[in-house]
Amino acid sequence: MKKEKQNNKLKIIPLGGLESIGMNITAFEYDDSIIVVDCGLSFPEDDMFGIDLVIPDVTYLKENLDRVKGFFITHGHEDHIGALPYVLREVNVPIYGTKLTMGIIDHKLKEHDLIGKVKRKVVKYGQHINVGCFRVEFIKTNHSIQDAAALAIYSPAGTVVHTGDFKVDYTPVFGDTIDLQRFGELGKKGVLALMCDSTNAERPGFTMSEKTVGKALESIFEDHKNNRIIVATFASNVDRVQQIINQAYKFDRKVVVEGRSMVNIIATATELGYISIPDHTLIDIEHLKNYPAEKTVLITTGSQGESMAALSRMANGTHRKVTIKPNDTIVLSSNPIPGNEKAVSKVINELSRKGAEVIFQDVHVSGHACQEDIKLIYSLVHPKYALPVHGEYKHRKAQASIAQELGIPKDNIFLINSGDVLELDEESAKVNGKVQVGDVMVDGLGVGDVGNIVLRDRHILAEEGIIIVVMTLDGGSGQLLAGPDIVSRGFVYVRGSESLMDEAQNVLNDTMDHLMDKGVTDWGKIKQEIKDALGGFVWKETKRRPMIIPIIMEV
Amino acid sequence: MKKEKQNNKLKIIPLGGLESIGMNITAFEYDDSIIVVDCGLSFPEDDMFGIDLVIPDVTYLKENLDRVKGFFITHGHEDHIGALPYVLREVNVPIYGTKLTMGIIDHKLKEHDLIGKVKRKVVKYGQHINVGCFRVEFIKTNHSIQDAAALAIYSPAGTVVHTGDFKVDYTPVFGDTIDLQRFGELGKKGVLALMCDSTNAERPGFTMSEKTVGKALESIFEDHKNNRIIVATFASNVDRVQQIINQAYKFDRKVVVEGRSMVNIIATATELGYISIPDHTLIDIEHLKNYPAEKTVLITTGSQGESMAALSRMANGTHRKVTIKPNDTIVLSSNPIPGNEKAVSKVINELSRKGAEVIFQDVHVSGHACQEDIKLIYSLVHPKYALPVHGEYKHRKAQASIAQELGIPKDNIFLINSGDVLELDEESAKVNGKVQVGDVMVDGLGVGDVGNIVLRDRHILAEEGIIIVVMTLDGGSGQLLAGPDIVSRGFVYVRGSESLMDEAQNVLNDTMDHLMDKGVTDWGKIKQEIKDALGGFVWKETKRRPMIIPIIMEV
Repeated sequence: MKKEKQNNKLKIIPLGGLESIGMNITAFEYDDSIIVVDCGLSFPEDDMFGIDLVIPDVTYLKENLDRVKGFFITHGHEDHIGALPYVLREVNVPIYGTKLTMGIIDHKLKEHDLIGKVKRKVVKYGQHINVGCFRVEFIKTNHSIQDAAALAIYSPAGTVVHTGDFKVDYTPVFGDTIDLQRFGELGKKGVLALMCDSTNAERPGFTMSEKTVGKALESIFEDHKNNRIIVATFASNVDRVQQIINQAYKFDRKVVVEGRSMVNIIATATELGYISIPDHTLIDIEHLKNYPAEKTVLITTGSQGESMAALSRMANGTHRKVTIKPNDTIVLSSNPIPGNEKAVSKVINELSRKGAEVIFQDVHVSGHACQEDIKLIYSLVHPKYALPVHGEYKHRKAQASIAQELGIPKDNIFLINSGDVLELDEESAKVNGKVQVGDVMVDGLGVGDVGNIVLRDRHILAEEGIIIVVMTLDGGSGQLLAGPDIVSRGFVYVRGSESLMDEAQNVLNDTMDHLMDKGVTDWGKIKQEIKDALGGFVWKETKRRPMIIPIIMEV
Repeated sequence: MKKEKQNNKLKIIPLGGLESIGMNITAFEYDDSIIVVDCGLSFPEDDMFGIDLVIPDVTYLKENLDRVKGFFITHGHEDHIGALPYVLREVNVPIYGTKLTMGIIDHKLKEHDLIGKVKRKVVKYGQHINVGCFRVEFIKTNHSIQDAAALAIYSPAGTVVHTGDFKVDYTPVFGDTIDLQRFGELGKKGVLALMCDSTNAERPGFTMSEKTVGKALESIFEDHKNNRIIVATFASNVDRVQQIINQAYKFDRKVVVEGRSMVNIIATATELGYISIPDHTLIDIEHLKNYPAEKTVLITTGSQGESMAALSRMANGTHRKVTIKPNDTIVLSSNPIPGNEKAVSKVINELSRKGAEVIFQDVHVSGHACQEDIKLIYSLVHPKYALPVHGEYKHRKAQASIAQELGIPKDNIFLINSGDVLELDEESAKVNGKVQVGDVMVDGLGVGDVGNIVLRDRHILAEEGIIIVVMTLDGGSGQLLAGPDIVSRGFVYVRGSESLMDEAQNVLNDTMDHLMDKGVTDWGKIKQEIKDALGGFVWKETKRRPMIIPIIMEV
């Protein structure tokens, strides 16, 4: 009886993304069926030394592999698709997404040699997919990348609407406005739960249309007819690129696209018909020198101050093909993502020092809904339960306040954590249980092999450096045959440190003399004594605690 | 003749602070006299692993020690006084500053055991100090710390006005408004050059009065009569602390001050009469439990998300005496300093997760002049030359634009670099020469002993880890007696890495067999072969490049 009752509930299990930005992945479970919405990655925190990216721990999916029916992807941003190539190796189930989203995923799968090994299905807005106990409908939304979708997830326990990342754009650059009518229709029929984007839930008002950026760009082009113009923006914002190209064409300028990710996305978007570039507008960077500077525009990556991106290399003078000159006007068509503010400022300062004019205010709009837009969606969908998603905790809390304002009872609003199992139906909703979740760190080719011990060691090495002490002992007598010798890295090097190392050598010699006199042969004891003596000496002299590694060899 | 001509010029030499925020220090030189304005430190950049703070290279002052007459300090912030205890050890000349500024400096000197070893003179506003060819007048300004001063520096070549960090506050919490009349008077008499604070030169309008924060605090106290209130702000903003205490007194709450730097500054300010605390208002943190939560206020450090500060410890649950509860209202009376945005967000998220309400908008005003205030100072001082100071390059460039708008010719505005020698008099001004400047890194007790090699090693260690290979050779035959053994730190550790290390061992064994067969005994050659073989293997298998250190011992 008990089992049966449990089976009547829908389970929503976020497997990542609620503790920090990125790594969005949520499992929906009913009876013998599991579907997964999105499969994103996070970029490493500042203290994750040497880590390239972070993907979710999907142990729960692996343990229930026979029940997992597919990935349903809302849009093609890294924090929603980036973990797919890694997760698919262990959870190889079909992927469902709209055309551009799938085009971007396909590019990724090719890079990881997975194309042909994974089932993919391109879905149209309005289309319904039946998988196990679920039916999933893709609904048109607007966002800072085209072909974004909200999902209506129909289960026997009720319907969940998941907005994905979205904004309301009444005048989109490409395609249609978000399908507000469908949200209203679903709401009229009855929606069990709404999972709505919280990113901008702290910001009052409405999010401006992408088209307003076109107007800002136009006036910059108008005012800078005698300058070369360089525009940096997000590679994936194809509509933004389209608007830059439109202005370039209008002002009779040639366009160069620079930066690998930008080139890739534009190729995909062109191939699939999401961007239209007039003939003879794009030129190769090699041909830039054949045109007067004021008749050219560069569209480039690096708007977040990423140290290896094209704009940063231009700013610090290491770009092989573009040299910044006082006649350049550089437009940052972006806002810094939290954490990137200082890197962006650095790039602006470097470009300014080279004499260029840098424009970085009011040439960007957000891709996420602000408070009034969120209220609109809630009013259309009118859910019984609210489960704010996407964004930091404070953003989700801000959305919870909005939901409450709109009349949803506090007990029906859930600010849960990754791994929490939210069980719900028309009768009730509550967190019941927890599944394994976590960060899996990717470093080079290694997935998950860098753990907390390695990271802790890297911290000590980074902050304090390392001192290695080596010696050779006689296997028979235990007597010291060579050493102890000292090698250090990342530790004091300049002024006065040679005499410090001489003194350290004396400390070690004394320690070893003492141990040999006492006839100590236990390697563990010897290593500990060396660590203590040398560590104590170094701390006293320098107030530093380098990692000390004694190594003993035996002949 | 040539020398004499040169002697008629004033030289302004910024010794730091123009490449990044902080480390403000500027030498003024005329004939046989040098005076120095401020002597600040910088906090390390993110990539300066293990560095505590950064101070200026003052080689130029050391080389001209007999001519250096004194330090003139504009105010008591770390970026203007923090390097004094280090620089004074090598450049021990008198310090001049206002009362609170000197009180804060004295506290520093005591910590560094320098009190009694340095001449200090407390200066009043309006007072003139004669040193060598110079006369220096201290002029009242407003800032986010009390007792801030602008300096009028009189030289035979003309007068320079240096604003220090300043704002225009017509209704300051403590003391008088900035002495605008004196700025006007000086301007009427003729000012050669103005060195004006650029920090907010990108922000339109006027900077609000500190008193407006008092009103914001009042309404928070009014709205949260049933909550404990915790306010985090900058330790040195004594006026802010005064306003918090005023509200606490008004609403009959007891006040606890928490955080070492906050306690220190309040002690100094109380002793010198810069803050007035009603009797029985302050209580010890140990007595907090004797009062109802809603009758208490905590004033704390940590408004910048600093990981070791009191507020961060409360947020992550490691503060020994304060536990955050859902009934707490926490006010961040501050804005994140660039670079700290993410750390501040993290603290807000953690506090919110504990159920507390966090208020972090509109409870702060800046201590720096905005565009209209800057225009006011320029219009009063009416300098011949403009030398924007304080702030990143883009801020100084924004001030240069303002100066140009106000009619100062472009050629009379100087955006120079640290180390540039600006020679000027009524006839002309130009950069003529360069002196040695740079960052001196302080790590533990070491000043300047961590150089670029150590930092570079720390980067590799942090990002890639280290593999140590040790072996013992026979001194006579050169034959391998023990090893090669492998020890690694900060390198792959978990899953699959044991077999990787086994394979690496095989690679090393093969390499050594090969070398021994060929009779190679040159240690340099052996080390290089080991680095190449192991480095190549590890890169192929993992796409990582750990630091590889071969160590050879001889018996």
